[in-house]
Amino acid sequence: MKTVYVVKVGGNIIDDELKFAAFLCEFSELPSPKLLIHGGGKLATQLASRLGHPTKIISGRRVTDEETLKIAIMVYAGWINKTITAKLQAFNCKAIGISGADGRCIPSVKRRPEPLDYGFVGDPLLSEVDVSFFSALFGAGLVPVISPITADESGQLLNTNADTVASVLASAMSKAYHVKLVYCFEEKGVLKNKHDKLSVIPKIDSKYYEILKSENIVAEGMIPKLDNAFQARQNGVGSVIITNGSGLLNLTKTNYHAGTTID
Amino acid sequence: MKTVYVVKVGGNIIDDELKFAAFLCEFSELPSPKLLIHGGGKLATQLASRLGHPTKIISGRRVTDEETLKIAIMVYAGWINKTITAKLQAFNCKAIGISGADGRCIPSVKRRPEPLDYGFVGDPLLSEVDVSFFSALFGAGLVPVISPITADESGQLLNTNADTVASVLASAMSKAYHVKLVYCFEEKGVLKNKHDKLSVIPKIDSKYYEILKSENIVAEGMIPKLDNAFQARQNGVGSVIITNGSGLLNLTKTNYHAGTTID
Repeated sequence: MKTVYVVKVGGNIIDDELKFAAFLCEFSELPSPKLLIHGGGKLATQLASRLGHPTKIISGRRVTDEETLKIAIMVYAGWINKTITAKLQAFNCKAIGISGADGRCIPSVKRRPEPLDYGFVGDPLLSEVDVSFFSALFGAGLVPVISPITADESGQLLNTNADTVASVLASAMSKAYHVKLVYCFEEKGVLKNKHDKLSVIPKIDSKYYEILKSENIVAEGMIPKLDNAFQARQNGVGSVIITNGSGLLNLTKTNYHAGTTID
Repeated sequence: MKTVYVVKVGGNIIDDELKFAAFLCEFSELPSPKLLIHGGGKLATQLASRLGHPTKIISGRRVTDEETLKIAIMVYAGWINKTITAKLQAFNCKAIGISGADGRCIPSVKRRPEPLDYGFVGDPLLSEVDVSFFSALFGAGLVPVISPITADESGQLLNTNADTVASVLASAMSKAYHVKLVYCFEEKGVLKNKHDKLSVIPKIDSKYYEILKSENIVAEGMIPKLDNAFQARQNGVGSVIITNGSGLLNLTKTNYHAGTTID
């Protein structure tokens, strides 16, 4: 089976212009086939604030009313997606910027409003991901850049968690490819001590994960990210790594270890 | 040669929710391969106004400063492009929403600042349009929906006239396909008397066009549209028609005449 890199880049890297340019440069040199899923960062919140629209967060997740959805689509699928695409092309990487709604490649359902109503939020349907769509793009020499917007059957656009999109997409692709899933965020890996940037945990298995959670070493935003990472492993994704943006190319080397491996 | 429909839909149809839904329904039933290029309508101006950013127009064209470019990308490549894509899918049309920057499919150059500086505005390069990119998408059963954003060689995103994108794209594709280019706008065709909606001119050739201009029958916004239409004909596009959105399917019938044919 061919190896495909499924890389997710988070908001904190996107928000830092220099870090982000370095990341895109590294990504452009990664062997193909590959794809990039991007988050949103602070830009959607900033635009909402300029428009005088309050951002509502419940349990760390944005509540997406109609206006917030429109802002998310404009910022994620418009501004960030096209900016990444054009920058990658300047690095000779033939990027095509899409969302999970395009070609119905990542169909989703609107989340049920109980117990909490998150509004226009989509949960991607793993069994309905169209792997042949991505294979066709790879076949044309293209590198998909995917914004975390999806649509349901009725054509309703939905805001979707980018870590979840990456996990679901990597899982679906693992039936046809050897998938290396990489979550890039602002730290070198999952930290044992959040005040020590070098205290990267090299490997986490599900037993150790329970210990880390019980000892409150991983908490808040890291928990959904790690849940998505473990879900991908359970779905058959060959390799799942959490690391920072720089050093992405090291992942192509054998016997080289970087970041935190999820096992 | 295979027939391909290159359809451009304008802002006045996009701004009218009911007309637009009817248009997308008709478009979804048009035989494939086909593609849709959309304009922007009032939404970009509305967003600019909400953000307190003044819109500057010179000779009927928007001046695109950095903030206006960002707004255009968010509205055209984000909101409008994804809304159209998701709606088409609900009509069982496997749309993929892209811009001219994606896959470097429609490379452009930034317009020179003399005699008037329009800012971040791109002029598409006909000889560099990547027809094989579109053929690959058609081959995967996809229907490209294209927002009028392009990029230059350096990865600078540029606001681009949607009528021009349609003309250039149709021209490039006419080397590999029998192209039917359709400009859809709010009238049934080019009107002889703008107060009589039924005074559609059935056919305009270049000689008649000069007469219509000299008699001020076509003026203002119609001139760049007709210039683009004639340019496409001169570049080898088989058929160029200007008409309204409803009745798009009539164009597939032989011996049926609708709108204004550019000859």
